Amino acid sequence: MTRRVLMTVLFALAAALCLQHPARAQTDPLPSWNEGAAKNAIITFVNRVTREGNMGYVPPEARIAAFDNDGTLWCEQPFYFQMAFAFDRIKALAPKHPEWKTQEPFRSLLQGDVKTAASAGEKGLLEVVAATHSGMSTEDFADAVRDWLASARHPRFHRRYTDLVYQPMLEVMHYLRANGFKTFIVSGGGIDFMRPWTEHIYGIPPEQVVGSSGVTRFELRDGKPVLMKEAKVEFVDDGPGKPVGIHRFIGRRPLIAFGNSDGDLQMLQYVSAGDGARLVMYVHHDDAEREYAYDRTSQIGRLDKGLDEAAAKGWPLISMKNDWKVVFPPTSGGGSVGEAPR
Amino acid sequence: MTRRVLMTVLFALAAALCLQHPARAQTDPLPSWNEGAAKNAIITFVNRVTREGNMGYVPPEARIAAFDNDGTLWCEQPFYFQMAFAFDRIKALAPKHPEWKTQEPFRSLLQGDVKTAASAGEKGLLEVVAATHSGMSTEDFADAVRDWLASARHPRFHRRYTDLVYQPMLEVMHYLRANGFKTFIVSGGGIDFMRPWTEHIYGIPPEQVVGSSGVTRFELRDGKPVLMKEAKVEFVDDGPGKPVGIHRFIGRRPLIAFGNSDGDLQMLQYVSAGDGARLVMYVHHDDAEREYAYDRTSQIGRLDKGLDEAAAKGWPLISMKNDWKVVFPPTSGGGSVGEAPR
Repeated sequence: MTRRVLMTVLFALAAALCLQHPARAQTDPLPSWNEGAAKNAIITFVNRVTREGNMGYVPPEARIAAFDNDGTLWCEQPFYFQMAFAFDRIKALAPKHPEWKTQEPFRSLLQGDVKTAASAGEKGLLEVVAATHSGMSTEDFADAVRDWLASARHPRFHRRYTDLVYQPMLEVMHYLRANGFKTFIVSGGGIDFMRPWTEHIYGIPPEQVVGSSGVTRFELRDGKPVLMKEAKVEFVDDGPGKPVGIHRFIGRRPLIAFGNSDGDLQMLQYVSAGDGARLVMYVHHDDAEREYAYDRTSQIGRLDKGLDEAAAKGWPLISMKNDWKVVFPPTSGGGSVGEAPR
Repeated sequence: MTRRVLMTVLFALAAALCLQHPARAQTDPLPSWNEGAAKNAIITFVNRVTREGNMGYVPPEARIAAFDNDGTLWCEQPFYFQMAFAFDRIKALAPKHPEWKTQEPFRSLLQGDVKTAASAGEKGLLEVVAATHSGMSTEDFADAVRDWLASARHPRFHRRYTDLVYQPMLEVMHYLRANGFKTFIVSGGGIDFMRPWTEHIYGIPPEQVVGSSGVTRFELRDGKPVLMKEAKVEFVDDGPGKPVGIHRFIGRRPLIAFGNSDGDLQMLQYVSAGDGARLVMYVHHDDAEREYAYDRTSQIGRLDKGLDEAAAKGWPLISMKNDWKVVFPPTSGGGSVGEAPR
C-alpha cells in the first residue's frame, strides 16, 4: 500500500466512523436555551434544511442567516451603544469645539444631561453623529471605536459593551455556522462602528456586516490613498432599508432572519416570503430583571406592528425571560468563538 | 480503543501523512501560464503570505483578493458585454415602446447601428441603461440576464459570453481559494448583472460581488414583498469608487488586486498601500490574434495612466500574448470550478 492509498483509506475509515458515531448530535447545540417552542423551532428548521434527502434540503451555498444587531445580538438600552460612543466622543472632542459649550444638543451632552440632549430630536442626533463620525479616515475611526470599547462601561451592568452580547444568540450563530450557514449582521447601526469588533465578538467577519453608512471619499494624501468619512448619510439600513441592504450586500434572500423591533419587520417579511422553508423570529424583551422589558411603546427598539404580524403569521417569539437560561456570557470578554468565521 | 479514540487516531495519522506527502505541491497550480515574471510573482506572493512562520504570513481571515471583471476576468470588446445585453433588451422591449422608432439612441440600436447610437454619448447610454435595467423586480431582472446569457453569442468568437472568460484567471482564482483566500469581484459593471452567473462561472458567490448599482425600492405587492429596480444610479464602482466600494462591501483592504484599465488604478493604489506585502497586477491586452490589443487610446478599458504607474511602481504586467498559453477555456461552458466558493 503506498502512502497515498493508505492516507485515503484512513480518511475513509475515519469518515465512516464519524457517520456511525455522530458525537456532535449528542451534545446540546444550544445549552443556554430552555426547552420550548423557540429552541425547538431553531433546531427543527436546521435539521430540515441541512439533511440531504430531506424535502426541504438546501445546499450549503444558499444557507444564509441574517441577524439584526441592536437588541437582537446585544443590548440596546438605555440607548443604542453607538449613541453612548457618540456622546463620549463629544466629550473627547469638546476642547477643539468651544462653540459646543453654548450649542444644543452638545451643551447638554457635555453636562451629562442626555434627556435634554435627546429633546433636540432627530435633527440634533444627526448633528451629533455628523460631528463624531466624520472628518477622519476610516482607519482612524475604526481605532476610535476600538479604543472606546476597551475603556467604556455600561451604566447599569458596569461591564464592557461587548460583554453585553446575548449568550443564547452566540450559540445560535455558532450552531448555524457548524451547519454550513454563513451568518450576516443586517443592522440599522453604522457599518463602520460594527466592523472593528464583530469578527472577534460574534465570529462574523467585516465582509458579512450590513449596516447604515455615510459617504466616504477616496483621496491621495502625500501620495498615500485614504478613505475619508464625510458628514453625509449614504444609506439607512433600517425598516424597508433592510431588504434593500440584503439585496445590495448579500445578493440573495436569507433562509433565516432574527430581529427584535419594528425596524426588522420588512426584513422578516422579505425573508419569510422566499420559496421553501424559512425561519424568522423576534427576540422579545420581557426580562426587566436580567435585562430590560419593553415593546409597543419603547422609544428604542419599539416592537408593535411586529408583534401583531408575528402573531398573525405564526412567527415564533423568543421570550428572553422564559427561553433563555442566561442572558449575557458569564465571564468577561464574552463571545469568543472557536471556529473560523463563515 | 473506543470508536471515538480510534477515529481521532485515524484522522491524526491521515493528516500527518498529508503533511509529509503534499501531493498538491507537485502539480502546477497555474497550468495555462507560461513560466515568467507574472506567473512567478503570483506564486511567490502566495507562498510568502500563506506559509506559517514566514515573515509575511497572513492569517486566512485576512486573505482577500479583489478582481476587476470586464477585461480582467472576461473579454470586454468590442463593447462591454453588459452593453450587448442592454442593446438586445432594447430590441426585445421595442414592441412596447413605439416611440423608440424615432427616438435616438433607440432608433439606431433597433437598426443594429451601434456606432450612431454610441454618438449619443454618456447621456444616451444612461437612457439605454435606465430603459433596460429598471421598472422590474430584482428577480425578474436576474431571470432576464440568465435568459440572455443562455442564448446570446459574441459577434467575433460566436461563443456564449460566459465562455469568453480567461482560463488563466480562472486558475488564479481557484489557486487563491485553495490557499485560503476569499475571492471578490470589484467591477464597474452592474452588480445585478453579474450576480446571477458569477458563482457558476467563477466560483464567486453573490455576496462577494461588488459592482455599480441602481436604487432599489421595497414594496408589498398584494402582501408579497418585492424589490423594484428604479431608474436612478446609486453607486458607480469605478475609478475612485473602487476603493470606496471595497470599504463599503468588504470592509477591509485586500492583499491582492487584479485589474486591466485606468478604472482600476485607484483600487490598485489602495491595495498596494496596505501594510505588509501586497500584490497588484494589470492584465495587458496585447494579443490581437487570440483576443484584442488595446491600451492607451482605447475607448473601452483604456490603460494609460495605469501603464505609467505600473512602470513607476514596479507592478508586474500580465502580457496576454506572452504569459498565457490559452486565453479562453477550450471547451464550451467553461469556468466550472470544482471547489466550494470561499
